[in-house]
Amino acid sequence: MSILIRNGYVIYGENFEVVRADVLIEGNRIVEVRKGINEPADRVIDATGRVVSPGFINLHTHSPMGLFRGLADDLPLMEWLEKHIWPREAKLTGKEIKVGAYLGALEMIKSGTTTFLDMYFHMDKVAEAVLESGLRGYLSYGMIDLGDPDRTEKEIKEALREMEAIEGLNSPRVHFVFGPHAPYTCSIALLREVRRLASERGKLITIHVSETMAELGKIQERYGKSPVVLLDGIGFLGSDVIIAHGVWLDSREVQILARNGVTVAHNPGSNMKLASGVMPLERLLNAGINVGLGTDGAASNNNLDMLEEMKLAALLHKVHNLDPTVADAKTVFRMATVNGAKALRLNAGVIKEGYLADIAIINFNQPHLRPINNVISHLVYSANGNDVETTIVDGKILMLDREVLTLDEEKVIDEAERAIERLS
Amino acid sequence: MSILIRNGYVIYGENFEVVRADVLIEGNRIVEVRKGINEPADRVIDATGRVVSPGFINLHTHSPMGLFRGLADDLPLMEWLEKHIWPREAKLTGKEIKVGAYLGALEMIKSGTTTFLDMYFHMDKVAEAVLESGLRGYLSYGMIDLGDPDRTEKEIKEALREMEAIEGLNSPRVHFVFGPHAPYTCSIALLREVRRLASERGKLITIHVSETMAELGKIQERYGKSPVVLLDGIGFLGSDVIIAHGVWLDSREVQILARNGVTVAHNPGSNMKLASGVMPLERLLNAGINVGLGTDGAASNNNLDMLEEMKLAALLHKVHNLDPTVADAKTVFRMATVNGAKALRLNAGVIKEGYLADIAIINFNQPHLRPINNVISHLVYSANGNDVETTIVDGKILMLDREVLTLDEEKVIDEAERAIERLS
Repeated sequence: MSILIRNGYVIYGENFEVVRADVLIEGNRIVEVRKGINEPADRVIDATGRVVSPGFINLHTHSPMGLFRGLADDLPLMEWLEKHIWPREAKLTGKEIKVGAYLGALEMIKSGTTTFLDMYFHMDKVAEAVLESGLRGYLSYGMIDLGDPDRTEKEIKEALREMEAIEGLNSPRVHFVFGPHAPYTCSIALLREVRRLASERGKLITIHVSETMAELGKIQERYGKSPVVLLDGIGFLGSDVIIAHGVWLDSREVQILARNGVTVAHNPGSNMKLASGVMPLERLLNAGINVGLGTDGAASNNNLDMLEEMKLAALLHKVHNLDPTVADAKTVFRMATVNGAKALRLNAGVIKEGYLADIAIINFNQPHLRPINNVISHLVYSANGNDVETTIVDGKILMLDREVLTLDEEKVIDEAERAIERLS
Repeated sequence: MSILIRNGYVIYGENFEVVRADVLIEGNRIVEVRKGINEPADRVIDATGRVVSPGFINLHTHSPMGLFRGLADDLPLMEWLEKHIWPREAKLTGKEIKVGAYLGALEMIKSGTTTFLDMYFHMDKVAEAVLESGLRGYLSYGMIDLGDPDRTEKEIKEALREMEAIEGLNSPRVHFVFGPHAPYTCSIALLREVRRLASERGKLITIHVSETMAELGKIQERYGKSPVVLLDGIGFLGSDVIIAHGVWLDSREVQILARNGVTVAHNPGSNMKLASGVMPLERLLNAGINVGLGTDGAASNNNLDMLEEMKLAALLHKVHNLDPTVADAKTVFRMATVNGAKALRLNAGVIKEGYLADIAIINFNQPHLRPINNVISHLVYSANGNDVETTIVDGKILMLDREVLTLDEEKVIDEAERAIERLS
C-alpha cells in the first residue's frame, strides 16, 4: 500500500521547515518528500491548501474518561473526585471502559492525534479499541495499592495480566507501559517492584508526580521529602520514565529529573481547570528536560484536542511569566510531536524520509487560518481539532475528509451515551 | 419570513435552562419556544442532536486585523507593534481594511458570533462588510491624537464623518460607537469632547483602559494618577462606556467602575498571549460590574472564536486564583452572551420570546461533545467555533450547515491572501 499526498504545505524535518511538496508513503514509512513526485501510488490525496503535519502525540490521558465529560466541573479537586468521579468509576466494568475507549479513540482520530499514552483500568479492553481504531496506543494499567501489601501483590498481578493480554495482540501499534498511579497512592514496595519489572521487561513507566500542592504535603508528611526526591532515592527514575504533570518542582527536583533523563508530560488544560498550578516550563526546558504535551482525561479538560492544548500551553506560560517570548509556537509544537515521540522511543513526530507515516492533514482553506502567513503559528494559536481533515497512522488512513474509516462514529457515540446512563 | 428550529436542546432564558424544544422565529424576533410547535414556517431547521444557543457577542475586537494573523508572535509588545504591526498598518488603505473586515465577518459567522464591538480605522468600509455579511456590528473609529491639538480636531472630524457614513446606511444592525483609543494615546481635550459628543448624540463609547503595566506607568508619570481615576476625574465614565481589558485595576478603581456602571470587556486570550496580565475577574463580578467577553484582534489571539475564548476565560482564572470554583461555566457563558448584549443595550443574548433572533446552532453529534451530560459545560470547556453549524442574526440565516449564505467564502479568503502580499 502506497499513499501520495500532493501539493500540501509540508512541515518538514525536525526544525519544522514549511515547504510546498509531495509526500510519498510506502507501507508504514515516509519514503520521499519533494516537489513533483510522479511515482504511481495506490492512493493519491490532494492536499492543496492543506498543511501536512506530523500527527500529534498525546503524552498523558485517560482515554475512557470521555464518558464523564462535563458531569462535574468548577469544583474543588477532592469534591470532584469523591462525589462525582470515584462513585462512577466504582461502577465501571470492562464493558463501559471499552465503550469509553472507543469514544476517546474516535475523538483523537478526529483531531489529528496519532499516538497516545494512556493510564486507566481494563487496559486489555482499551487495547481492543486501539487495535480496531488504527491508532498507536501506549497503555498503562493504573496501579493503586494505598500501602496495603495484599493490594500490592494484586495490582502487580493485574498489571502483568494486562501486559500479557496486550502483548498477545502482537501489534506493533499497541504497547504496554507500567503505570503506578502516583507516589501518594502507591507504596514504596510497589514502586520498587515496578522499577524492577520495567527494567527486566524493557518497558516504559508512567506515573503522576507533583500534580498538586496537597500531594506535596502528603508525601512530605509521610516520607519527609518531596515526591521527586523520594523516587530518586529508591532508584525509580530513568530515561524510561514519563512523569505526568510535574507542576510543583523546585530547582533541585528539576536537576534530579534532568540528571535521570526523565520526560515530563505537561497538561496545561487540566492543571488550569483543576487549579493545580503552573508547571515551571522554562525551568524544565532550560535544564534540558524532554517535555511532551498531554490533554489528561476529558473529565478535567474537557476534550482530547491537542491543537487546543498547544494554545493553552503557549498562552499559560506567557501570562504566568509576564513574558510573551516564553513558550513560542515552535517550542510548543515540538512538545506535541517530536518530544512525545522521543519519550515513547518512537520513530515518529517528524515528516521526513524514514520516519513512520503518522500524519495529520489540516484544512487551511478556512477564514481563521488565513492569510497563510505562518503555518506553525496558525496551528498553535488559531487551529482546533475540527480543522484536521485526514489522519494517517502507520501508513494507513484512519480518517479521510473528516470521515472516520476504521470506526462507526454513530455507533460509538450512541454506546457512550447509553453507558453513562447505566452509570448514573 | 419565519423559521422553525425543531427538536434541539434549547438554552432557554436568562438562566440558561436546557430544554428539548422548538423555537419559532417570525421576522427578526423569537416568538415562541416550546415542545411540539406545529405552526407552518417558511423554513424548518432540524436541530436533532444540536444545541440552540444565543449567538455570541464579541465585546472587543479589531476585525480587519485578521490580515495580520500569525505575522509576528512570541514578541515583546513594543517590538511586535513597532516592527510588525505599525509599519503594516501605515500602509493600510480603506481597500485593505474592507478586505480584512470581510475576512473577520466570515470568521465570526463561521464560529457563531452574531454581534461584535469593533475598533479600527475606515469604519465606513467595515460597515459595508457588516451590512453585506448580515452580522450586527457596533463600530468605533479608533481615535489617537497623541496630545497634538491639530490631530485632536482631525480625529473628531474623522469620527463624525464615519458616524454619518454609518448612520447613512440606515441599518438597524450597524451602529456607530465612539472609540478614543486609550488614555495614553488620547489627550484630555479629546476625551472630554468625545464624552460631550457621545452624550449629545446618545452613542456608546469604547476605550482601551489599563491593559498593561507600562500603560499605568505612562499615565502615572503624565498625570500622577491611574487611568481609571483620571477618566473618573474628567467625568468620562458612565453606563454607556465599555472599557476593554481592565487588567491592572486596584480595589479603588473597581469601585469607581462599579459606581459609574461601566462595562468591562475581558480579553483573556490576548492578555495571555501578549503577557499583559490577568484581569481581576472575581473582584469585578463581586463589585457587580457587567463583564463581557472579547477576542481582541486576530493579530494577538489569533482567532475570533468566542467558544475558545470562553474556555480560556474559565481556565485562566481558575489557575490564577488556584481555585477551580472561580469562573464557572455559566458565569463565563453569561459573559459571552447576556452581558455583551446588556453593554450594547441590545435585546439579545437570550433565547426567549420577544428577544431578537440572534442564534447559533451547534452540532453536538460529535465525539468531543458526547455524552451530552452538560450542555453549557460542553460549550465552554469542549466545543470550538467549527462546531457551529448554523448562524442566525436578526431572523436571517447567515450560515446553514456550515455554508455561509451571505458571503462568497472563497473570494473573501483569496482577497485577504492577496491584500497581505501587497502590504509585506
